[in-house]
Amino acid sequence: MDDTTFAVLGTGGIGRRALEVSADKPDLTPVAACDRHGVAVDHDGLDVDELLAATEGNIASDGGATVEGGSTGIKQAGADKGVAASVQADPTESPIDDVIAESDAIDAVLVALPNLEHDFIPRVAERFAEADFEGVLVDVLKRSRVIGMLDDREETLEDAGITFVCGAGATPGFLTGAAALAAQSFVEVHEVDIWWGVGLKSGYEDNRGTVREDIAHLDGYDIETARAMTDEEIEELVDEHDGVLEFHDMEHADDVLLERAGICDAEDVTVGGVLDLRNDEKPTTTTVTVTGETFDGEVATNTFELGDDTSMEANVNGPALGYLKAAVRHNRAGDYGVFGPAELMPGF
Amino acid sequence: MDDTTFAVLGTGGIGRRALEVSADKPDLTPVAACDRHGVAVDHDGLDVDELLAATEGNIASDGGATVEGGSTGIKQAGADKGVAASVQADPTESPIDDVIAESDAIDAVLVALPNLEHDFIPRVAERFAEADFEGVLVDVLKRSRVIGMLDDREETLEDAGITFVCGAGATPGFLTGAAALAAQSFVEVHEVDIWWGVGLKSGYEDNRGTVREDIAHLDGYDIETARAMTDEEIEELVDEHDGVLEFHDMEHADDVLLERAGICDAEDVTVGGVLDLRNDEKPTTTTVTVTGETFDGEVATNTFELGDDTSMEANVNGPALGYLKAAVRHNRAGDYGVFGPAELMPGF
Repeated sequence: MDDTTFAVLGTGGIGRRALEVSADKPDLTPVAACDRHGVAVDHDGLDVDELLAATEGNIASDGGATVEGGSTGIKQAGADKGVAASVQADPTESPIDDVIAESDAIDAVLVALPNLEHDFIPRVAERFAEADFEGVLVDVLKRSRVIGMLDDREETLEDAGITFVCGAGATPGFLTGAAALAAQSFVEVHEVDIWWGVGLKSGYEDNRGTVREDIAHLDGYDIETARAMTDEEIEELVDEHDGVLEFHDMEHADDVLLERAGICDAEDVTVGGVLDLRNDEKPTTTTVTVTGETFDGEVATNTFELGDDTSMEANVNGPALGYLKAAVRHNRAGDYGVFGPAELMPGF
Repeated sequence: MDDTTFAVLGTGGIGRRALEVSADKPDLTPVAACDRHGVAVDHDGLDVDELLAATEGNIASDGGATVEGGSTGIKQAGADKGVAASVQADPTESPIDDVIAESDAIDAVLVALPNLEHDFIPRVAERFAEADFEGVLVDVLKRSRVIGMLDDREETLEDAGITFVCGAGATPGFLTGAAALAAQSFVEVHEVDIWWGVGLKSGYEDNRGTVREDIAHLDGYDIETARAMTDEEIEELVDEHDGVLEFHDMEHADDVLLERAGICDAEDVTVGGVLDLRNDEKPTTTTVTVTGETFDGEVATNTFELGDDTSMEANVNGPALGYLKAAVRHNRAGDYGVFGPAELMPGF
């Protein structure tokens, strides 16, 4: 495959790490990055080291918070903060439009904004479509209902020539991909069970976007109430649970994405997990089990386990860039519209 | 995806089961099947039940042997045997050419001939290319060196518009696909270990092609010597091992295919397994382990395990048809040439 140029919207945890990880892959060239206050563009390839050093405080606010304007920890450089502190960047009040203006020379855009309103990313996609962007958009969202909002815009995306891959991080991306692969033993899948463990010793302070996103899945919370919580309220909630939050029957996009890919019915998918904010060790092993019936009538379970020493960050960013590259191949082949990660897998 | 029409070359174990399994998937329509003596074509879809019933003795000779002309157990219908015994079929002396003659209306061809000379399938591919077949060819071979022979013909295949997927069965297909997926946690893969277990209580008699193919991997054997063995010699060898054959450091295509897909160096891949010809229970659990380093410097191992109750047959035929469908998408997008299964996966 030829080289792929990509942009990152949001330079919180996920965006920064995508830039960092891409440095290991010569066929991926980051050419643009933005946060709420600044935009850096270099079509020959950004100087990732400089950009990351200049914006290093951003990691404390993670993806969403940065673009939302959370200022905690964002590095100051004179009047500039965040991306604007980089010598490669300019301050701006319209970062996304600035990236769109450069998008003729961008193959793919990683939308690393985990914690905004439900329809924020669909609306961002629409703006790219209105500007006739022909290329790939990838997000790492985890909520089922966003898929429907993207589907509502599918014709717009197709007309522009956009291949949109939603939910391409660890969950649902990596794990639904594993489920789709594991399903190939079976002519009928009875049940997919996704159970994840994440250990983030660095705690809430360093992982705001991700933690807030997860809290939205707890009983009694949704994305709006989680978003409305103050940092203190979140710290309090975490304290109440001694730093360990356990989730069951999450409204996660995995179910919808596996149904879209023809693997099983959404109702046959269960998702849960444990988030430990006081230990880096995973509190439980991330495991995908797929139970089904083979063509010769046997019922069996295939299992995919992630090593406990693979961090959430590694399992988000590797797959996100893997799906991004797969999507570029689809896009170049004229395959436009909305795709879940599992739809990019071979599937019987 | 639109409907896919496909043909099967060889109606031994793998070919028959591909026809059988496809009946569970309405978007896959089998339109042609052949063995050495007969060819059945119906562009509206073969009557699989009738064809399988008419040829049911073939299962005893597995894929290769049937086309090679092994007559043991092949059903007789007057002067016809094998496929020719079906009311949908005609006797022929040029079954492959007969399928090629119909190939304008065939999207994909599953080459289910496991036990012929090294260059047999590359030469079959060449014949399809010479006839300007635009479509997909899939094989389920397990030997590394065949890939090179296909590569030698890549330009011919590309010019014709052929997408050739090699090794698309359980191993290397399913398991290298799993390895490619599991590799996404890592920026560098250190080691891929593939360890398979197969239990075939039905023994050599019912699995001639597969067993012969595996024997070729034993120390002191190669595909030519394995092919030259009489049935009695094979039975004797199996007896000497009490029905259990254990394989280490196999020359399996997995290594080459993972290197092609950019996952790791071929030398970092080890393949072995245990074949029990006297029990249906697997003698060991089929496991793929991928060890690598994450972008944040941790070394970890991701694991994929097939349920012990999934038969070899289920794990060959599901993936073979899954890769076939993925290849049809590539072919329709103009993506021609030789591909390993792992190359059809998203990959960072």
